[in-house]
Amino acid sequence: MDHKGRVRRLQDALSQNRLDYLVVSHLPNIRYLSGFTGSSAVMIVGETAAVLFTDGRYAAQARAEVNSAKTVISRKNPLLSAADWLTTKRKSTKANNASMLGIEGESLTVGAQSRLRKALPAGFRLKIAPLLIEAQRTIKDEDEVQRIRAAIKLGAQLFDTAVNNIRPGVRESSVAAEMEYAAHRAGAQGMSFETIIASGARSALPHARASAQSIPAQGFVVCDFGVILTGYCSDMTRTVHVGKIPDDSRRVYEAVRKAQQAGVEAVRPGVTAGEVDQAARKILVTAGLGRYFSHSTGHGVGVEIHEAPRVAAGQKDVLRPGMVITIEPGAYIPGKLGVRIEDMVLVTQRGCEVLTPTGKDLLVL
Amino acid sequence: MDHKGRVRRLQDALSQNRLDYLVVSHLPNIRYLSGFTGSSAVMIVGETAAVLFTDGRYAAQARAEVNSAKTVISRKNPLLSAADWLTTKRKSTKANNASMLGIEGESLTVGAQSRLRKALPAGFRLKIAPLLIEAQRTIKDEDEVQRIRAAIKLGAQLFDTAVNNIRPGVRESSVAAEMEYAAHRAGAQGMSFETIIASGARSALPHARASAQSIPAQGFVVCDFGVILTGYCSDMTRTVHVGKIPDDSRRVYEAVRKAQQAGVEAVRPGVTAGEVDQAARKILVTAGLGRYFSHSTGHGVGVEIHEAPRVAAGQKDVLRPGMVITIEPGAYIPGKLGVRIEDMVLVTQRGCEVLTPTGKDLLVL
Repeated sequence: MDHKGRVRRLQDALSQNRLDYLVVSHLPNIRYLSGFTGSSAVMIVGETAAVLFTDGRYAAQARAEVNSAKTVISRKNPLLSAADWLTTKRKSTKANNASMLGIEGESLTVGAQSRLRKALPAGFRLKIAPLLIEAQRTIKDEDEVQRIRAAIKLGAQLFDTAVNNIRPGVRESSVAAEMEYAAHRAGAQGMSFETIIASGARSALPHARASAQSIPAQGFVVCDFGVILTGYCSDMTRTVHVGKIPDDSRRVYEAVRKAQQAGVEAVRPGVTAGEVDQAARKILVTAGLGRYFSHSTGHGVGVEIHEAPRVAAGQKDVLRPGMVITIEPGAYIPGKLGVRIEDMVLVTQRGCEVLTPTGKDLLVL
Repeated sequence: MDHKGRVRRLQDALSQNRLDYLVVSHLPNIRYLSGFTGSSAVMIVGETAAVLFTDGRYAAQARAEVNSAKTVISRKNPLLSAADWLTTKRKSTKANNASMLGIEGESLTVGAQSRLRKALPAGFRLKIAPLLIEAQRTIKDEDEVQRIRAAIKLGAQLFDTAVNNIRPGVRESSVAAEMEYAAHRAGAQGMSFETIIASGARSALPHARASAQSIPAQGFVVCDFGVILTGYCSDMTRTVHVGKIPDDSRRVYEAVRKAQQAGVEAVRPGVTAGEVDQAARKILVTAGLGRYFSHSTGHGVGVEIHEAPRVAAGQKDVLRPGMVITIEPGAYIPGKLGVRIEDMVLVTQRGCEVLTPTGKDLLVL
């Protein structure tokens, strides 16, 4: 992984944003910049400096993993250790102007900010920084794409496990347990989110986790799941049907499938995320299912399961080669049924590549 | 669950702390006060009001789960929906004084605080509130103790799974996978933290997650794990030995066991958490292992795996009946071996009850 290049690009972005330092507190960002996988750390990145602060538990790990930053091991809380370093640094440079310190507004808590302020002498000004690292993370390099491909491949195997276990009378949670067991045995570090197995009327709940409910004799089963492998996430959804499928259910499935295909076909460099959402949504509106598509079309995936860009109505973010996003329209008729189909796609120079290898013909089990 | 009583006690605490409202953003606290298990919500608690804000995805769930607060469903972000409610409320009461709004410093992010401030009119003052709900949560009621007992019972079964799977050549991660699979099948909602299976020299890393490393022919294996059941966590550690055990390894095990017993025996109402830590630590110091006991003796457990009180050197928190804490001393000799033994105990009127049912004689596998 090109951690040094990532730090360098962040350093360039700092001066463009008139920040002397960025206090990186969001662990996925720290991992992205340094490779450090411990659960307690803060990074300070300045125009010429990059330092990672952690505690004694992670001394050996920091030495082994981090090569893009100096590491400081301290008994103190890493944030306070970072404050000490900043204080010493400012003294040594005899700066007259205030030092502008960017903080990560979506991860630093109010309590932590207050402790940081108290630990710093006069001469430091804190402000919420733009999402510089998140923006950089949207474009995956070759190493990252390779890891994402491997995670997707492992994740897709789990759909076979799902299909082999889904039948009337089996608990949703048992199907999820079999999938997660298979994932662990295949070497996954974990699931990228709580596995969704939503059957019968529960398929109409877009965020239903696997429950103790048994799969009914007839109806859709939405399977939404992913794994974490070498630090990168996968995410896919397939919807199968148990028992004889009524014609109107099949029409819903085919409309979602067509919408998903339209979403995929809209993905190419230069279009906005909102346009991709619109391409998928239009199909469902035309099919009379617009009001049953109650969420956005997709999101970026990488170190975190939900990253920029959001693929949602009105989003102006422009797609660029190297972005990895999901395309996952759905239709949910309350109390009745739900269908969602989701692939991960890589934006390429000319269009996109669907990374999820699994077929999308309706499986009736 | 006595959610209404919890809200009432918080309301009493608010006036004692000169707060007009508390903005509850920490989801475990929201769950504790209301029973709501969704992943997006904010609660406002005032002297006479209690309102839960969530979005449309959780409308049915909020209706089914919440009876200690009004619920407001909104398309807006719950925090902004709460700001609207506060604004309207203030107008209707024609208040002259500033309204003091407590925020949760350890959960609200700087970004969220900034959005909240912008959404509120003049007349509101924000300040970081004391940990009022966390303090209340330290004392478990009968319902909670019952749920914790059930979680511990299920968790303890997993140790049998561990013992049945630990043998030289098996990957640590395979042992963890078998345990997690058994947990899911037994109805656990999930693990309360990432299962630790640390064998051989890795046993000396107190926070080692199960890795792809195979269990060596000889050495300790630290097993630290827990489940979530009906919203409450369990936590236990046992250390077993694979292959013939050298005398000095056995001495370390017996010292940790004695320290753990001393910790348990120190637990009763009126003593401080620091005194319990000292009771366990003293034994290891006497055994010449003091510098190898690099963490604190324990922590509270409940809705979250780590809660107040901290059972650590110098902690002044006084133990009271109804508290549930872990007692988990350990000794870690870098590069060589580690041992940790952990039970959960309930502080009773006269002393304590060890909740973890599993024996502590050394198992040599």
